[in-house]
Amino acid sequence: METLTEFNLAEAIAILTRTPATLNALLRGLPDVWTLRNEGRNEAEDTWSAFDIVGHLIAGERTDWMPRARIILEKGEARPFDPFDRFAQAKESQGKSLEQLLDEFARLRSENLAALQALNLQPQDLARRGRHPALGVVTLSQLLATWAVHDLTHLHQLSRVMAHQYRDAVGPWSAYLGVLHCAGHSA
Amino acid sequence: METLTEFNLAEAIAILTRTPATLNALLRGLPDVWTLRNEGRNEAEDTWSAFDIVGHLIAGERTDWMPRARIILEKGEARPFDPFDRFAQAKESQGKSLEQLLDEFARLRSENLAALQALNLQPQDLARRGRHPALGVVTLSQLLATWAVHDLTHLHQLSRVMAHQYRDAVGPWSAYLGVLHCAGHSA
Repeated sequence: METLTEFNLAEAIAILTRTPATLNALLRGLPDVWTLRNEGRNEAEDTWSAFDIVGHLIAGERTDWMPRARIILEKGEARPFDPFDRFAQAKESQGKSLEQLLDEFARLRSENLAALQALNLQPQDLARRGRHPALGVVTLSQLLATWAVHDLTHLHQLSRVMAHQYRDAVGPWSAYLGVLHCAGHSA
Repeated sequence: METLTEFNLAEAIAILTRTPATLNALLRGLPDVWTLRNEGRNEAEDTWSAFDIVGHLIAGERTDWMPRARIILEKGEARPFDPFDRFAQAKESQGKSLEQLLDEFARLRSENLAALQALNLQPQDLARRGRHPALGVVTLSQLLATWAVHDLTHLHQLSRVMAHQYRDAVGPWSAYLGVLHCAGHSA
């Protein structure tokens, strides 16, 4: 087995810093066909569109990552995290454009990364423990690693949802295009 | 069944135009741990790193997409495409930095999109047929749709390869992170 990458705060921040610009480059100004549709094969399959995904990332910035980091540092395992509402974005995003959501995500992420840096975390802080309402005991480093991988899981989902719009247009090439064979694993 | 998105040249170009900036925002300046490692669980699994993926996209710009479009327009089904060398990048990328590859990809993509626009394709051109060496008869619109979805399949792969570096660092959250459960479908 190869040695797995250990968590490193600077490396996680390198991912977290880049996500808003990545989504901006990928999505801003795209025709609605790519950003407002989901990958469902029929209307009963209520999967997410790019618009929904950016709304979900905003909800995470507001209610999940940094609030949970503060609960770990201030209360430890004594105070379980609030459950994350995976559907909070439907209300929050209503009436907004994708461009407004991209701007809002970039602003919130930047504020949260400034707050994270201001905590001046030391190596021993990263081992501090909190309590997830379903998963049980977790550490601050696991929370911060998850924040970064959560960005990547939604980039993975975005590329899949977008690609599926052309699943018929590619004709026989669909056999070679891995993303079209992804059943979707994103929570 | 919902109506699937039909191929639309302007919509495909909207994706193709954005990919270089997306990869640039995601990858430029990232620590090597994210860009030079693959997702293999051991050394025998020879999967691709971000560096390999950008090299592969460059090879496609040089030898695949526009050359095949020209074969369709000039020779039709009479002249099968050359097979695409999926490992051409190993030699081409040797000794280069990721930043050099990102620059090269952006330049080639921009040149190819200018050449595509210069073809001034009409709707009837999009139905013109060519011959893939393994898949048989394909149309120009299928080729161009595949060019766009090929970008998305490699963005999907990139997010997976990067996320897997932290598959242990996230601890119990791995259960919720879909990208960590993707076995990889990319050709």
